[in-house]
Amino acid sequence: MASEFELIRTHFADLGAPRSDVTLGVGDDCALLAPPPGQRLAVSIDTLVCGSHFLPEVDPETLGHKSLAVGLSDLAAMGAEPAWATLALTLPGDLATGSAPWVAAFARGFGTLARTHGVRLVGGDTTRGPLSVTVQVHGFVPDGMEVRRSGSRPGDLICLSGTLGDAGLALRELAAGRAPDALLRARLDRPTPRVDLGLALRGLATAMIDVSDGLAADLGHILESSRVGAELALGSLPLSGWVAQALEQGADWTLPLASGDDYELCFCLPAQQVAALAGLAERSGCPLAVIGHIRSGQGLVCLGPDGQALNLARTGFDHFRAADV
Amino acid sequence: MASEFELIRTHFADLGAPRSDVTLGVGDDCALLAPPPGQRLAVSIDTLVCGSHFLPEVDPETLGHKSLAVGLSDLAAMGAEPAWATLALTLPGDLATGSAPWVAAFARGFGTLARTHGVRLVGGDTTRGPLSVTVQVHGFVPDGMEVRRSGSRPGDLICLSGTLGDAGLALRELAAGRAPDALLRARLDRPTPRVDLGLALRGLATAMIDVSDGLAADLGHILESSRVGAELALGSLPLSGWVAQALEQGADWTLPLASGDDYELCFCLPAQQVAALAGLAERSGCPLAVIGHIRSGQGLVCLGPDGQALNLARTGFDHFRAADV
Repeated sequence: MASEFELIRTHFADLGAPRSDVTLGVGDDCALLAPPPGQRLAVSIDTLVCGSHFLPEVDPETLGHKSLAVGLSDLAAMGAEPAWATLALTLPGDLATGSAPWVAAFARGFGTLARTHGVRLVGGDTTRGPLSVTVQVHGFVPDGMEVRRSGSRPGDLICLSGTLGDAGLALRELAAGRAPDALLRARLDRPTPRVDLGLALRGLATAMIDVSDGLAADLGHILESSRVGAELALGSLPLSGWVAQALEQGADWTLPLASGDDYELCFCLPAQQVAALAGLAERSGCPLAVIGHIRSGQGLVCLGPDGQALNLARTGFDHFRAADV
Repeated sequence: MASEFELIRTHFADLGAPRSDVTLGVGDDCALLAPPPGQRLAVSIDTLVCGSHFLPEVDPETLGHKSLAVGLSDLAAMGAEPAWATLALTLPGDLATGSAPWVAAFARGFGTLARTHGVRLVGGDTTRGPLSVTVQVHGFVPDGMEVRRSGSRPGDLICLSGTLGDAGLALRELAAGRAPDALLRARLDRPTPRVDLGLALRGLATAMIDVSDGLAADLGHILESSRVGAELALGSLPLSGWVAQALEQGADWTLPLASGDDYELCFCLPAQQVAALAGLAERSGCPLAVIGHIRSGQGLVCLGPDGQALNLARTGFDHFRAADV
């Protein structure tokens, strides 16, 4: 393996956007950072493991992008402004030995997304072992302006950015040995963290989460934290042409409801704020849909396009307790 | 696998010392933290991989301790006061399924050390895959009081806490199928991060690093960052009885100089501060030794107990370029 120091120096020492609040970056025992006064520091750590979260033949540039994107999506879901990242990269010998190109491509994917969002890589660790990537992201949010999971109230609208189920469909296609459309595959490989939308929803959304494990499970966390229930109108779910077609061809609702990796934002909005949605969509550059509403009680009721309540348990989905209709 | 949420709730939700600067801990998209004004935030991330950094049959409580200790040692080496930690734990199915005891023991080891140093676990991620642990530590240091690697000057004394080579000797014994003495093994399994010493050296040490990869390599980082050379007196290296005996029985100087995992602090001190050492040792509760001095130029010269310069390249050690004696 090229020595750890060499790898770090060559590829990771100056990655991302320069920032004046990085007192000391990569290359000492710790990075030294200057958080802005009067703001909360928001942090989130996530690991992507080869075989669980991506395929062994993953394109390294794609992996670099995605490993940062999942963290930025968490910051977005809190209404936090991205600032710094750290990276722990575990590489098997065959990638590290004479594999400067692999590491360079990974750094390119990571660095390009980092610069887009003004993020600086400030520290890291490279180790030898089964391929996995852990990234911690750090961002800022003014005290009291963060959007938690716990603030939704009966009557709130449930809203969603983008479309649902694309990443899940791309994964199904790959698992079946078919090559998904390049744009569909990009929804799996290069998710777009909805950072601008998250910032725009500060002080507006009552609760928010990013959809990483599937809408039903992630909305379930909001319901549990907020001690409320919800009703979803499945006919209102925003679907791409690919997913709409898959549903017509026999795929069931678990595709948009329970497949992961969408990295869209699911948020709750007081009903009187519905008029703000069009402006929010325009400012943040992504479509927004109202897909249901919060109600008192507990559990999630899904109304099919025919208006009948759907029993999700029967669709093979059991991440949350059955709705008490 | 017990669901991620269940594992997190049961074992990691309230781990470590309560802290009033944790606005929001485990359980949302991000943790929200309140860094103290006027201080720098020091962060360091490290991964321990099964097979590279510990043996598959590792005691989980030991692993919990060590995975936090290596990070605290980095904070110590910067003169930073520990505050928060995040944890990304990747578990194979056999540890996660019905392995509440394994996870509980890991959390116990982690939590006990965390409480000792007033550290709170504020966030994490659990994933399924080959066993590895990534921990990020966060601490504070007043602006300008940090101790970097780059500040040593010719004439400075090179000092070291504790003893060298114990962890390396324990590992050699284990690799040879012998059971090391329990106290020797504890030096490998449960290193003591020298947090109090690091804090006491603020404004006093000119450069500092923790010895994780072996003294010669780590001192080499100080020399490179500070653009200086050094002379070590091998006869002054602080050695335990075990390592001294191993040297008598034929082990070479790579044992104390080039085996890792010691997690002692190597620091440089202006010569006129030598009188401070006794007080520092007393206040920080660990022995301190002067092992050499910084000189101008570059490279590391090691003088053997006979006063002859030792060519480390010949001892199989090649982490740094040969000394230009």
